[in-house]
Amino acid sequence: MTSAQPNGRILLQQCLSAKLMVQPATEDEEAKYVTINRGLIVYVCFLQGANMEIVEKMAKAALNTRLSDAENGKLVSVLDLPGDVLIIPQATLGGNLKGKVMQYHRNINKEEGENLYRAFVDLCRKTVQGQEKSKDCEVQAGTYGNRQVFSTDTNGPFTHLIKF
Amino acid sequence: MTSAQPNGRILLQQCLSAKLMVQPATEDEEAKYVTINRGLIVYVCFLQGANMEIVEKMAKAALNTRLSDAENGKLVSVLDLPGDVLIIPQATLGGNLKGKVMQYHRNINKEEGENLYRAFVDLCRKTVQGQEKSKDCEVQAGTYGNRQVFSTDTNGPFTHLIKF
Repeated sequence: MTSAQPNGRILLQQCLSAKLMVQPATEDEEAKYVTINRGLIVYVCFLQGANMEIVEKMAKAALNTRLSDAENGKLVSVLDLPGDVLIIPQATLGGNLKGKVMQYHRNINKEEGENLYRAFVDLCRKTVQGQEKSKDCEVQAGTYGNRQVFSTDTNGPFTHLIKF
Repeated sequence: MTSAQPNGRILLQQCLSAKLMVQPATEDEEAKYVTINRGLIVYVCFLQGANMEIVEKMAKAALNTRLSDAENGKLVSVLDLPGDVLIIPQATLGGNLKGKVMQYHRNINKEEGENLYRAFVDLCRKTVQGQEKSKDCEVQAGTYGNRQVFSTDTNGPFTHLIKF
């Protein structure tokens, strides 16, 4: 059964490069980062009621929608570019404005959200690495629940929001 | 009369710094950029039916919503931080997924969109510079219709979408 309200959200931006912290510095160790080159940044948020069916739709849309500038001026999917993918958990995308604050009443609980997030990352990685054209592309992902310290460089983000 | 469907969208992200091209390079001149330091990036999109009333609501929400990390761990508005503001036109935020492409049937026409965008930028600038606490902060803005070549650095974007 599909919920009447959308319960997954992705925000997509093109990039030339991006760098994301996946582990904060400790007393003993420096912070750890992942990086991608040209490709797609995928911010992900799950709301209550999200499930694996939604995860599959979200991954399919992120990887197959024609949003990336190809050399010939046409828009192609990140799989066809082929380009790297950086996945960033972003619970704040689930918010609604109430007065002067954002409220997150519909966001999924942390444990379920983390499971769906991992499934989303695995599915994206499997899909990218399963295609001849994109098999050498990077799929990198932020750590769920962490502060998403990052930097990016783009020749036009072309920001897209898709709800599921 | 207010439209039943939302007709303005802003996407907000915190940043430590950001740099945006406002004029592409020509044969005679190098590209021109604007930069901001710590503050807020505001992506703006207008749909058909947007008007000055919507512009005022959008500017108020962008500047007054408590989305910025203050030193004490609390969230404060960009006016109270006080922080800089970078406004980026982003027509792609008005899209809806149809098959493998985004469609923009509800986006406003270019002329009306440009007028509302200018009004939004002017109102944000006036508001920021009109308050004692934020009067020395920068309000920078991208050129409407240009490719938004940019880079940013953040300690956590906390991406928020608000519809009006």
